[in-house]
Amino acid sequence: MTKFDEATRAIRVDETTYDVCLDDGYSIGGPLNGGYLLAVILRAAVDASPHEHPVSTSAQFLRVPKPGPARVHLEQLKAGRTAAMTRATLVQDGTSYIDTLITTATLTAAEPDYTDAPPVPLPPEEECLALPAPKPENNMTFNAQIDLRFDPPTIGWLTGEPTGRPESRAYFRMAEPQDPDPYVLALAVDALPPVVFSAGARGWAPTVELTWYLRALPAPGPLALYGSGRLISDGWFDEEVEVRDSTGRLVAQSRQLARLGRG
Amino acid sequence: MTKFDEATRAIRVDETTYDVCLDDGYSIGGPLNGGYLLAVILRAAVDASPHEHPVSTSAQFLRVPKPGPARVHLEQLKAGRTAAMTRATLVQDGTSYIDTLITTATLTAAEPDYTDAPPVPLPPEEECLALPAPKPENNMTFNAQIDLRFDPPTIGWLTGEPTGRPESRAYFRMAEPQDPDPYVLALAVDALPPVVFSAGARGWAPTVELTWYLRALPAPGPLALYGSGRLISDGWFDEEVEVRDSTGRLVAQSRQLARLGRG
Repeated sequence: MTKFDEATRAIRVDETTYDVCLDDGYSIGGPLNGGYLLAVILRAAVDASPHEHPVSTSAQFLRVPKPGPARVHLEQLKAGRTAAMTRATLVQDGTSYIDTLITTATLTAAEPDYTDAPPVPLPPEEECLALPAPKPENNMTFNAQIDLRFDPPTIGWLTGEPTGRPESRAYFRMAEPQDPDPYVLALAVDALPPVVFSAGARGWAPTVELTWYLRALPAPGPLALYGSGRLISDGWFDEEVEVRDSTGRLVAQSRQLARLGRG
Repeated sequence: MTKFDEATRAIRVDETTYDVCLDDGYSIGGPLNGGYLLAVILRAAVDASPHEHPVSTSAQFLRVPKPGPARVHLEQLKAGRTAAMTRATLVQDGTSYIDTLITTATLTAAEPDYTDAPPVPLPPEEECLALPAPKPENNMTFNAQIDLRFDPPTIGWLTGEPTGRPESRAYFRMAEPQDPDPYVLALAVDALPPVVFSAGARGWAPTVELTWYLRALPAPGPLALYGSGRLISDGWFDEEVEVRDSTGRLVAQSRQLARLGRG
């Protein structure tokens, strides 16, 4: 069991209740990373489902949970032959922190019937750049869990040269050797710095809603994350992340609606 | 009050319950159009919210409701100053048919801080084509509620010439004169024929999950709908619809995960 598997473990109490322990190793300056929290919730939802894979996850981020014990409450909405639907809620001290609607199904290794043209590939990994290590006082423990190598222009904002467009692209690996699986993909779709940093924004950008689809089981090897946004308006922005596995296959699609940071 | 306003009316019973009547004028061959059902649910959720606009709506389509009386049950998850979150469920005869998570907020008419390059524009409206009127026995009453004018190649599938890619693009108006508003946008994001028709698929393609964001209040005039998909695999496909208002502004973004039809 890897550290990530351990940190996302959900222990069945009864058919609608799972105990979890939120790990402070996934802090992004205080709040825990949203993708990490989704992975925890998905462990419980999939364990209780007749199907194997979380094909659709929609989450509303209501409040910011603290590291430590929490529970996932499940409500089975439908258990069909092709797909099952569940509402899963992350609860801490009796209060709901994240509410989700999850569809599980069982994906096969079948070849796609149709796949669109892939995006412009990332530069070779050796030309991509890691972020500088965060200062300990910033409490960015999440950064140590993953290894991101960025397409250089998309972290130009670090040195005062943002591209002027919401975008972020990087190779993604777990820091500890671990092949990607659906839970790693839940982490990956929310692992990039907010795409708006590249458009000149700063500060923590709280996710309000995030929906992601698991489209195929990822091959071993690094993932490629393609993040972008269409509109920044009225304090809101969208962030889309497309995840390709090491064979170039589209394995996950996500979109989130988030608030611009005030920092 | 337009026919659409009437067909989506939600009458408050108490703070968590609204009575609605599902109108058989929105049938797509038996099932009611998903966007219509979302508009009904949103009427209730917004009426009960301290905020004016449904900025994010995620829906799981559990079962196919029948025309006639139904209820919307609301659960307030959070009422913040910037945004409120609600779970809203469409219930008929004691069974849940659609489960949603909705974020409401209040959008202003502010100019965007950033907007990406718009898509390749549709051809002029006079070069676009309507679908032939459906046969009465097909029970496609929905088609009479809206006026869609298609970018011709994207309905080539009608005459045996699909483009080979999942895509559909059209101008959208309500048949009865009505300026677009957030409820019309809920209809618009699910109003196109399934994008997979253009890739050679046929038959009713049931939506499993649909999430759409309201990004700005639409200007009067026709909407332009840009529908596309990335992957058809394992019986699943994604459909994205971007909605621009008559000034070219991005007003809504949706993505759905649906099943390929068997027909």
